[in-house]
Parts: sequence; C-alpha cells; structure tokens
Amino acid sequence: MSIRLYDLAAADPSLRFSPYCWRIKMALAHKGLSWEEVPFHFAEKDQLPQPNAGTVPVLVEGDTVVSDSWAIAEYLDRRFPGKPLFACAESKSTALLVKLWMERTVHPFIPRMGVVDFMSALHEKDKAYFRKTREKRFGTSLEQHMNNPQQAREGFVAALEPLRAMLKQQPYVAGAQPAFADYIVFGHLQWMRCGSPFPALKKDDAVFDYRERMLDLFDGLGRNAAYRERLN
Amino acid sequence: MSIRLYDLAAADPSLRFSPYCWRIKMALAHKGLSWEEVPFHFAEKDQLPQPNAGTVPVLVEGDTVVSDSWAIAEYLDRRFPGKPLFACAESKSTALLVKLWMERTVHPFIPRMGVVDFMSALHEKDKAYFRKTREKRFGTSLEQHMNNPQQAREGFVAALEPLRAMLKQQPYVAGAQPAFADYIVFGHLQWMRCGSPFPALKKDDAVFDYRERMLDLFDGLGRNAAYRERLN
Repeated sequence: MSIRLYDLAAADPSLRFSPYCWRIKMALAHKGLSWEEVPFHFAEKDQLPQPNAGTVPVLVEGDTVVSDSWAIAEYLDRRFPGKPLFACAESKSTALLVKLWMERTVHPFIPRMGVVDFMSALHEKDKAYFRKTREKRFGTSLEQHMNNPQQAREGFVAALEPLRAMLKQQPYVAGAQPAFADYIVFGHLQWMRCGSPFPALKKDDAVFDYRERMLDLFDGLGRNAAYRERLN
Repeated sequence: MSIRLYDLAAADPSLRFSPYCWRIKMALAHKGLSWEEVPFHFAEKDQLPQPNAGTVPVLVEGDTVVSDSWAIAEYLDRRFPGKPLFACAESKSTALLVKLWMERTVHPFIPRMGVVDFMSALHEKDKAYFRKTREKRFGTSLEQHMNNPQQAREGFVAALEPLRAMLKQQPYVAGAQPAFADYIVFGHLQWMRCGSPFPALKKDDAVFDYRERMLDLFDGLGRNAAYRERLN
C-alpha cells in the first residue's frame, strides 16, 4: 500500500524545513520505503486527514492515519519490522530522553537564529498565522526574539556539547549506524539549514561533520533537498 | 570471586558522594552481586591497584582491575550477562549521549551549589589537593565558584527539563525498569544529596520523585547511605 506523508511546504514548494517531518522522511528511507509527499500549508489545516493534532507530519497508509513523529516511528516499526528504527525497547526509551533534550534544550536556540527567515520563506497565506502563534509562544515579536543571532549561535553550539563529546567515541547516536535517535537530532539541524541563510554550525565543528554524514545518507536525501544556508 | 570497589570516602568514612562510584554501586546491586568497598582518599592515589587513571571507581575482581565507570559497566555486562546494564548495543550507544549530557550540561551546576561543602566534608589530608585541582579547573576559588547557589539551582533545575518531560511518559530513562542510564543520572543527584546540605531539588519536582524511586531501589541502597542534604 502506498504511503503518503503530509510535509510542511514553504512558498517555494520544494523548500521543506519542518524538523518533525525530516525525522519521518529519514525514517522512511531507513526502512527502504517509498512515499508520496503532500505539501502542507498552515492555512490548510482543515484538509489534513483525521485524526490529527493540527500539525505535520501526518502519515497515511490505506485507512490508517498516524500523526506525531514519535507515534509514526512506532507505527513504522510495528508495520515494517525490518531495519528497525529502535533496536530494542530500552533504546527507544533512552531515545525519548534524547528527543526531549533536542526539543527542550537545543531547539529553543534555533528560532533565535532564524525565525524571521522561516516566516519569510512561508507562503503568503501562512505568514499571519505563523507570526501570531509564534509571537504568542515567545511572548515577543519575531524580530525581537531574533535580535541577537550570534549570541543564540553561541548557546546553540554550547548546548550541542554532549553530542560533540559523543562523536569522539562513536559516529552516530545509535552507535555504528544511524537510527531514529539520529533522525531526531538531524531534523533540528536540517530545520536550520533549510530554513535560514544563517550558518549555525562552523565547519570545524564535529557536529558539522556529523551533519555532513547525515546529509549523505540514503543517496543524499537530506543533501538534495532545497536549502537556504549560506556558509561563511 | 569477590569484588572490591575503591570508593571515594570523606572524613566521615560512611559519607560517600562520588557520582561515578554511585553509578557502579547501583550497577552491582542491579546485577545482584555483593562487593566489598575500599575507602579511597585522594592522598592515597598511589595505593590504587594498577592500572588506574588516578580516579575512582576502580573495580578489582581476582587479577582483573577495571577503572572508569563506563568501562566497569561494560566489564560487568560481559562478566555477568544476566540482568544487563544495557539491553542492546543501541541502548548503550544512546546511553553514552545521556552520560555526556549529564557530565557536560547538568554536572557543571553542581559544584556551583556545593563545592565548598564537598571540600569541607573531605579528610584533612585530601583538602589541599581537592582545592588546588578544582580551582585550576574552575579558574577561580571554590568560594567564588559557589558564590550564587540559588542562581546555580535555577540553572540545574532548567538543565533537567528533558528528564522532567520524559518522566511524564515513563518512570525511568531505560523505560519501565531502571538500568545503567538511570544509575548515571542518579549518581549526579546523589552526589549533591550526600555531599552538601543545600537542597538542589524541590519536593514538587518530578525529578525529586524520580530520585525518591531511585533511592528506594535495592532495599534502599541509596537511601540508607549517609547524606548531608537538608530539605526546606
């Protein structure tokens, strides 16, 4: 049965920067599956298949609709047990802490480096919604939230220190080969790379090399995507 | 064969607060093993069995000497495969990132809350060494490093947010039951609890409840140890 993935699209429909959708595109490629991407716009929430939480990714396979990237990963491992995204129950539980580390500790620096860029890339019909919801979340204007991207970059680089130290001992979070924990980390790196010209990582950073390896996976799935980063 | 564990001891030899030694005491109990603790003092480094890196824990079993808490955990899983500390290779790799998150992101707040207390608890013969090495590491005096424990506490509580969020979904880092990833996290919490009167965690924090569960494991191994914390 064919798989459809609802994926956030920018004004340029080839530009896709949702970190949560990137997790799933990498997971599908990890499993060797093919899928059809359905461009999603915030203004078209009512067109998402039910049930959904008003966010992407949403994955549809036949009559099955799964939303939330973590639930989709679990679904894919149940439905297609080969090439698991989680090698054992314990690695899934431990990966949940890695997920929440990315979302709670690392993630907050990313809008501070690029949220105005993310908005400017969106379709006109999405911009007012994006600005309103994000300004409510941040408690300030997007422009004010992003008023010191260099300082945010320092925080971002420092927050990634555990990953940097880990890379001295193994090439991927999952060990010798990448798995879902890596697709979580990569999704956030790719969000910034695709959504903003601002270079968040320096080329002499081991995390930059890690991102390079991740970009090359699956015949360059990540690398071949449209992106906006302008490296210094 | 009997197991001996070299464990950092304070002036009161019942007071043991090394976070790295706590990882291993919990790991040994997890395996259902018994062990003899050898009190270690910084001033007696030359009495540690060879090879060692000048730090504890060092575990000795027959002719085998293993130092470094991570290497000891790996040794224990090879030597006693029952009740694994790591359920699979991937969970061990992912736990390495958790370890480095605790050491690089969470750990630095702990001396800022308690390092003068840690020193004051040490044996007289250890104090000068401790002060000298830690002041070199911090680039300032112990007293200056600990000059705003309330601010450090706020940083500590914020740094633990990924764990707090995780606890809404599962009771332990390893999932339904604790394993080595939890003993790593617990070691740092127990370091502060045993070494300083300053209450780093508030009682209404889910991380406090997690620590309570960890203290109760293995017939209260952690809870029955001498400690200095004075809860508000």
